[in-house]
Amino acid sequence: MDELKSIDAYWRAANYLSVGQIYLLANPLLTETLAPEHIKPRLLGHWGTTPGLNFCFAHLNRVICQRGQDMIYIAGPGHGGPAAVAHAWLEGSYSEKYPDVSQDTIGMQRLFRQFSFPGGIPSHVAPETPGSIHEGGELGYALAHAYGAAFDNPELVVACVVGDGEAETGPLAASWHSNKFLDRQRDGIVLPILHLNGYKIANPTVLARIPEEELVKLFEGYGYRPHIVAGEEPEAMHLLMAETLDRVFDEIADYKQGEGRLPMIVLRTPKGWTGPREVDGLPVEGTWRSHQVPLAGVRDNPAHLAMLEEWMRSYRPEELFDGDGRPVAEILETVPQGPRRMSASPHANGGELLRPLALPDFRGYAVELKSPATGPSEPTRVLGAFLRDVITANPTDFRVMGPDETASNRLSPVFDVTSRAWNAATLPTDDHLAAGGRVMEVLSEHLCQGWLEGYLLTGRHGLFNCYEAFIHIVDAMFNQHAKWLEASRRIPWRRPVASLNYLLSSHVWRQDHNGFSHQDPGFLDVVMNKKAEVVRVYLPPDANTLLSVADHCLRSRDYVNVVVAGKQPVLDLFTMEQAIAHCTRGLGILDWASNDGDADPDVVLACAGDVPTLETLAAAALLREHLPELKVRVINIVDLMRLQPPSEHPHGMSDAEFDALFTTDRPIIFNFHGYPWLIHRLTYRRHGHDNLHVRGYKEEGTTTTPFDMAMLNDIDRYHLVMDVIDQVPGLGSRAAHLRQRMADARQRARAHTREYGEDPIEIRDWTWRQ
Amino acid sequence: MDELKSIDAYWRAANYLSVGQIYLLANPLLTETLAPEHIKPRLLGHWGTTPGLNFCFAHLNRVICQRGQDMIYIAGPGHGGPAAVAHAWLEGSYSEKYPDVSQDTIGMQRLFRQFSFPGGIPSHVAPETPGSIHEGGELGYALAHAYGAAFDNPELVVACVVGDGEAETGPLAASWHSNKFLDRQRDGIVLPILHLNGYKIANPTVLARIPEEELVKLFEGYGYRPHIVAGEEPEAMHLLMAETLDRVFDEIADYKQGEGRLPMIVLRTPKGWTGPREVDGLPVEGTWRSHQVPLAGVRDNPAHLAMLEEWMRSYRPEELFDGDGRPVAEILETVPQGPRRMSASPHANGGELLRPLALPDFRGYAVELKSPATGPSEPTRVLGAFLRDVITANPTDFRVMGPDETASNRLSPVFDVTSRAWNAATLPTDDHLAAGGRVMEVLSEHLCQGWLEGYLLTGRHGLFNCYEAFIHIVDAMFNQHAKWLEASRRIPWRRPVASLNYLLSSHVWRQDHNGFSHQDPGFLDVVMNKKAEVVRVYLPPDANTLLSVADHCLRSRDYVNVVVAGKQPVLDLFTMEQAIAHCTRGLGILDWASNDGDADPDVVLACAGDVPTLETLAAAALLREHLPELKVRVINIVDLMRLQPPSEHPHGMSDAEFDALFTTDRPIIFNFHGYPWLIHRLTYRRHGHDNLHVRGYKEEGTTTTPFDMAMLNDIDRYHLVMDVIDQVPGLGSRAAHLRQRMADARQRARAHTREYGEDPIEIRDWTWRQ
Repeated sequence: MDELKSIDAYWRAANYLSVGQIYLLANPLLTETLAPEHIKPRLLGHWGTTPGLNFCFAHLNRVICQRGQDMIYIAGPGHGGPAAVAHAWLEGSYSEKYPDVSQDTIGMQRLFRQFSFPGGIPSHVAPETPGSIHEGGELGYALAHAYGAAFDNPELVVACVVGDGEAETGPLAASWHSNKFLDRQRDGIVLPILHLNGYKIANPTVLARIPEEELVKLFEGYGYRPHIVAGEEPEAMHLLMAETLDRVFDEIADYKQGEGRLPMIVLRTPKGWTGPREVDGLPVEGTWRSHQVPLAGVRDNPAHLAMLEEWMRSYRPEELFDGDGRPVAEILETVPQGPRRMSASPHANGGELLRPLALPDFRGYAVELKSPATGPSEPTRVLGAFLRDVITANPTDFRVMGPDETASNRLSPVFDVTSRAWNAATLPTDDHLAAGGRVMEVLSEHLCQGWLEGYLLTGRHGLFNCYEAFIHIVDAMFNQHAKWLEASRRIPWRRPVASLNYLLSSHVWRQDHNGFSHQDPGFLDVVMNKKAEVVRVYLPPDANTLLSVADHCLRSRDYVNVVVAGKQPVLDLFTMEQAIAHCTRGLGILDWASNDGDADPDVVLACAGDVPTLETLAAAALLREHLPELKVRVINIVDLMRLQPPSEHPHGMSDAEFDALFTTDRPIIFNFHGYPWLIHRLTYRRHGHDNLHVRGYKEEGTTTTPFDMAMLNDIDRYHLVMDVIDQVPGLGSRAAHLRQRMADARQRARAHTREYGEDPIEIRDWTWRQ
Repeated sequence: MDELKSIDAYWRAANYLSVGQIYLLANPLLTETLAPEHIKPRLLGHWGTTPGLNFCFAHLNRVICQRGQDMIYIAGPGHGGPAAVAHAWLEGSYSEKYPDVSQDTIGMQRLFRQFSFPGGIPSHVAPETPGSIHEGGELGYALAHAYGAAFDNPELVVACVVGDGEAETGPLAASWHSNKFLDRQRDGIVLPILHLNGYKIANPTVLARIPEEELVKLFEGYGYRPHIVAGEEPEAMHLLMAETLDRVFDEIADYKQGEGRLPMIVLRTPKGWTGPREVDGLPVEGTWRSHQVPLAGVRDNPAHLAMLEEWMRSYRPEELFDGDGRPVAEILETVPQGPRRMSASPHANGGELLRPLALPDFRGYAVELKSPATGPSEPTRVLGAFLRDVITANPTDFRVMGPDETASNRLSPVFDVTSRAWNAATLPTDDHLAAGGRVMEVLSEHLCQGWLEGYLLTGRHGLFNCYEAFIHIVDAMFNQHAKWLEASRRIPWRRPVASLNYLLSSHVWRQDHNGFSHQDPGFLDVVMNKKAEVVRVYLPPDANTLLSVADHCLRSRDYVNVVVAGKQPVLDLFTMEQAIAHCTRGLGILDWASNDGDADPDVVLACAGDVPTLETLAAAALLREHLPELKVRVINIVDLMRLQPPSEHPHGMSDAEFDALFTTDRPIIFNFHGYPWLIHRLTYRRHGHDNLHVRGYKEEGTTTTPFDMAMLNDIDRYHLVMDVIDQVPGLGSRAAHLRQRMADARQRARAHTREYGEDPIEIRDWTWRQ
């Protein structure tokens, strides 16, 4: 009972601090009567969810102290930012991170003022918030983040409050099934707390309005054992929540021992609990009207001002803080110590726990080649062997995610040493399923992304392999993660985390068999909208360059690395040493494919991406054979960011370097993997830009053959030769004749394909005359 | 029993035709022994899901005939394309749409050959497939499409097969709750059929491997009454499915009368049912190995070839087709007639049912203004009044979707005449909830988008209002819908449907209070990657231009229209007549804001978007006041596509027109709503491009004030004046002095904001001297 009194004191203190953050500029301890000048001019913040978040914090702290439990807290309703901040301040970790926001009156005043104030802190839970790995903006990812944090953290419990608004989103609805991928032994536990406060912004929530019998069945159906904590009378609710948590943590212990089901809690409380009941004759507590700021007219309306004061005093601040504004001993004693504090857990500042991957020497996986453009190899299969050994060397902090496409993307060598994580029933016909498998496959790009984000932000490493077109499913999640990284880099106490690595295979040029719906290389455009300091895009054209790029990405920190690489056989272009040099430069002239010697070229053929590169090389071969006097320079680009000016991206080339490579006055035919305008966007300030002609995917495609796909979008060898002839002036009648031959070759190829259902040539087919 | 024999014959025929499509070039009726030359060179297609889809088709046809039920079919596992095509051919509608694919031997041969063949049809269900409104590519949207089709179609049943792979996706997991938004009276019924065939590409599926008790609870928890149809012995399965469907349709009738719950079916069958049991010693039927082509080596491996023949003959084609290849009478008699055929339903070619909206004259909602730049008005509130009357005039075929933000986006006048659709419990404190409400709010952008797509594709109209940043959540869905429209436009029998209209309000420049996570104008970049013929982007700067644009969008067909418009007060710039003229041109000089008269300007200030326009106007005012001799031309762009060349977009301006407006040699300072490089991408071929300097969102922002947001990204009036002074040569010392004053003003503004928490000026504050 005394314990519950202390919890109640903590809760009141957190609520008081939350209201203070939303409203007050000054007079933090209400030592004088509230006056308009104590009130912020713009009232921004979300009260509705906050008391519930505070309630959970208070009760979880008791469990942490009693059981010595490692725990972190994910606030799905992250717009309840004041709660997480109040909690960190009460636990002392806020002042440790931000010494000027001290645990005293002046610190409390700063705490209040800075919230949602220009030059201050965001209104939502954010990277700036100690103890958080989860931004409170876009909704839907709390539970996936929680599971990601729990994987390979066997001692950890991740308490995850899911708002009933967020619970309506697709990603969250799918996330409940993450329990089928959790290993009781190797992984930690996620404790979901579904907070039914009944309303979103202006609407009731679905889960708050279905019969309780249905609600219970839903979560039993999801594989949990639900516990309901419902009410509004604080004393009864404290008792109920404490008893429930005791039961729940006993069940968690049983579950770790192999018994029973995962528990979860349904917490049903009024929205804006303990806030104003009624304002201007309209009900507020328990309704959607308490979503943001329940009393909006405080600065100008004396009645509202008085209500605010009454509301804040209802928490009895004089019992909670001493004369210096410091929390009283009763409160401080409820708080866990050191890294056990959820606001100070190193898991929530994952860089503190991050250890570099043990990486085998990627050179050892190199494809041998005697001369350029031999082979072929399947780049992702070669990468698979490297990843296999990365998995072996890092058995507890590296995972590969993908929506059931790891084998399809030809990373199958990984299955020599591991399996797919699976914690549901199995059958003899199943292939490589096991609890604790390092490969996580679920047909939800949202879950793959959310799990991986949670895994990375708690200090581990990983790779997400995906069909290129469908990575757009997580555009919004990528945006939020990139923003998290952008903000984190400016926060001194946030330690760097491993980069989020995408491997986009099964890409637009080899989705000929799946057709139009599977063809979209536009994720690169989305990625390039984010700050240059956090995004990297690589298009290795063969197996050895893919190995070099992958090694680089796995060592990097705080980036999003996008690697586009095919799974189909392509020619090997570089020896390992050449590949390293090429990737280090990010782009370079392919001497063996060029015939401009030391002189100026007549035309530059640039290429980025595996299929465009093969077509470019074939075009160069055709030109060399048929127009040998034409001086052709072939440039391959691996690191797309090199094309930008250095003012735009740290990898950017100087104009001098660009001009030396691309010339300022010769036609440049650029064969690009993606939508062509991306190249214009990167290069529009370059001297040679007016001479730049870009080919790429122009949204033409259907179920057809690979070479036909290239022709449909004019990136094929024949069309490139035609482009060269069109752009280089004064080539004469021999060139005109060649142009006609190329046009005829295209016609014949199309007719052949329509007649026989297969290409007349393989994309990788051409003989190179050295 | 005879009935079930006929159903079995139909099923065998559909299965036979499906296998034929995957494998055969010739010899469609197996009149001779299969030889390698009868086999396609590339075997592309998905067998695994196909027999289950065919099974459902066959049985639903019985119900349609018996009950005279209007029904359409959504094949969630759309990669089972052969099933939908086989069905349409058996029903005769395929030959009606494609007369050369006749219902005879030669037609059957063409049917087989064209499938997944260059110049033929896609391997997945696609716009080319009669009877479909659902592309089989990206997974997750089947059930949302089904509900969208059912809304306001009270006589319709939408049978929706959900694959157990797809069921793992977020959007699908959320879609089950759509039943809370369905009105028994006004809406049709969705009959979900969860097809548990157990495997995805290489993995088991979650729902196939949880205990049946959990599975049942899950769907009861979702609010359905599940019926399980499980087995593999055809005769028993036919009986069970027929009995179950009888019960289910009785329950549907009861539900329409207000009793009971919505039924759903769980169909558990082997993957690749009736296909090869074992190939090369490995089990195939009932495993993931039957996902695509169970016999892969048919052309080169005589044993595989023999197995294929055995497999196809197991369906006893001689009983199914007469000597001319026409389905026998027993099969044709099971097929519904005319538009009752699911493959010929006008609901699945919605343009056939589309009627133009009854639109009130939008001019009647105009904001009055005596002179430009007075007001202010809240554009979306003005639009709300127009939408209110659109709703009144179109009570059964127009809906507004949004993730709980319709009021927040200030479209609240609509609630004068309608409510939010809601079919769960209500409380007295709820606001505007009702069954049959025309506004659909659910905290899932996926559901909003999926419902609207289903609604539009079945011939109705709608609008999706959304926070700008979070529309990225449906990037991938937008891509797929745009591709559907791109493909549909090339199919003569597909009739035009109403455009998908996005209203992006609560945009990047007024998300100062929500902070960084809510700031992302990049959806425009995603949209612009799709074909020019289907995408349109509008940035009306005030209320009257928004009205004009909205009217235009609601009348348009087969587009995706993106309208970005703020909800915050902005100055009224145009009278209604001016607004119409301005929107019709798509862009134009604001004479009253310019002082270049008939002469050439010294500088062009271009702007697109409401906040950038206000800042540009304020900059022009500052320049006129302080550098009156400088000739400034102000151009506002509403229709972003006008900036492109006419070769790139049908709205594109000629170079002559562009040059006349923007000049070829004067500095252009372009203040843009979105990421600045989009403007470069649209204009890089223009003569004046080298003089173009674009300001826009550069990923700088936090919780702050509106003017501070503008300053953080250098789109503010002061910075624009500085840009002008930097770019116009020879302005002299007075300009240098003004530049310093502007820099000082920025400093002061930032300091003021940090001190007082509010802006020193309102964005809409400036006096215009006419």
